[in-house]
This record gives sequence, structure tokens and C-alpha cells, in this order.
Amino acid sequence: MLGAIDHTAIAVEDLDGAVAFYTDVLKLALVHRETVADQGIEAVLLDIGESHIELITPLDRADSSSSVAKFLHKRGPGLHHVAYRVDDIEAVLSKLTAAGVRLIDTAPRIGIRGSRVAFLHPSSSGGVLTEIVEPAGH
Amino acid sequence: MLGAIDHTAIAVEDLDGAVAFYTDVLKLALVHRETVADQGIEAVLLDIGESHIELITPLDRADSSSSVAKFLHKRGPGLHHVAYRVDDIEAVLSKLTAAGVRLIDTAPRIGIRGSRVAFLHPSSSGGVLTEIVEPAGH
Repeated sequence: MLGAIDHTAIAVEDLDGAVAFYTDVLKLALVHRETVADQGIEAVLLDIGESHIELITPLDRADSSSSVAKFLHKRGPGLHHVAYRVDDIEAVLSKLTAAGVRLIDTAPRIGIRGSRVAFLHPSSSGGVLTEIVEPAGH
Repeated sequence: MLGAIDHTAIAVEDLDGAVAFYTDVLKLALVHRETVADQGIEAVLLDIGESHIELITPLDRADSSSSVAKFLHKRGPGLHHVAYRVDDIEAVLSKLTAAGVRLIDTAPRIGIRGSRVAFLHPSSSGGVLTEIVEPAGH
């Protein structure tokens, strides 16, 4: 049902500083940078094997409607969510619904790089914000 | 330098309940379960692509010397650390030291399944507890 860890996402306050650590020190390749207005974030993808590290920062840290801004205010920078890659996001959402999983997104929405994504509610996934991602082109 | 996400680790209070979610609902295969006395935890590995989800729980939740017990007490269940797979852990530790990275483990110690592991200090990695892992047999 799940093919791989698509990405592990890290909320950061200083996106350029974080990019410098992951590219200069850990030597990961930056492959994409995008403002995802729908989610109120700027995001960077770094390649690591078949997966990515996704660095995310709120466009407006004072925006109390931004979940990433709230996360940073409450917890500080750190691991934010984990995303699994799927081939058919509607099929996976149907299976999760049938299994009684509570979803934040009952239908896919557009994520980074034209992917289609949906989030499970952390109350159904042991406190871990969990995302499924169908990459663009599937 | 880093080959893949070896695992993303999740701290849980109810290990069997978490295993049920990941195996029954998300359909990941449980491949290993081990008590890591050195770290004061019980850990489970679930296969996902080239990576694992690692579920960890403290052997004694009241043990104030246990970092995972303290994490659960402070934050509740959730994403705990990310680990990268390496071929030569000493070489990577040397490079990190040369780059000025603060390390929790300046020399490798034995981790799950006979791997050799070392943790970077979160103060050097943007608040994210970060591990490097050389699997057994390298």
C-alpha cells in the first residue's frame, strides 16, 4: 500500500541556515524550492536515497492560522511529519477510511511539485502527523 | 556521504498498539523487535522501501535518566529522530567533526541489529536529533 518514505519533514525558523547545514555539512543535494501558498509555507526538498528531507518554514511566523507557525511557536524547530509515497492516493484513502482512520483530507489536494497529497489526523496515527503522497505523473 | 534514510523513529507509549496500527492499517511488515538495554528502550523495525519506521518505547517510563521517557513526558508520542545510513561511520564522524558539528557520540556504539551508530547533538542539526547508522556486515 505504501511504497517508500517519500519525505521526512522538518520545521525550521531559518530556511537558508537549514539549507546550508543539509547541503554544506551533510552533503545532500537541493533539488527543489517552492512556495506552497495553500499551506502558507516555503519548502525545500533535498535528495536522500529514494526519499527526501523536506524543510518547511511558515511564510508568516505571526500567522496564527498557520499550523507550521503554531508548531514552531509551541515546540521550536524539529521533526514535523512523515510522508509515504503511494501509487493511487484515492485507493489508499478508501482503505484508510474503511479501516476507521480519521483523515484531515478526505480528498487529495495539490502538494509540492504538483503531487497529490492527503494528511491523516494525528489522533489516528499515534500522535504523528502522517501524509500520503502520489507524485505528479502517476 | 549519506546513503538513505535508514529509519525515522517514533516514540510511543503503547508499543503493541503502535505495531498494530503500522502492520494492520498501514500494512508495513514488522521485521525486527529488540530490547536495547544500553539505550533503555524496546524497539521495533517495520519495512518501508529501503528504509524503516522504528517504534521506540522506554523500558521504564519513570526512569528520569531515559531520554525517550523524558521525551514522552514532555511532548507525548511523536517523531523522535531521523537516522541516515552510511558505509563507513568513522569516516563520516571525522567529516562531521571537521565541519564543526557537535556530536553526542564521538565514537560509534552498538545499536539495533548489531549496527554501529552515533548521534549528532540537536544543537548542531537545527533542533533535530540526528543519527548515523552503519548496518552490521559493513
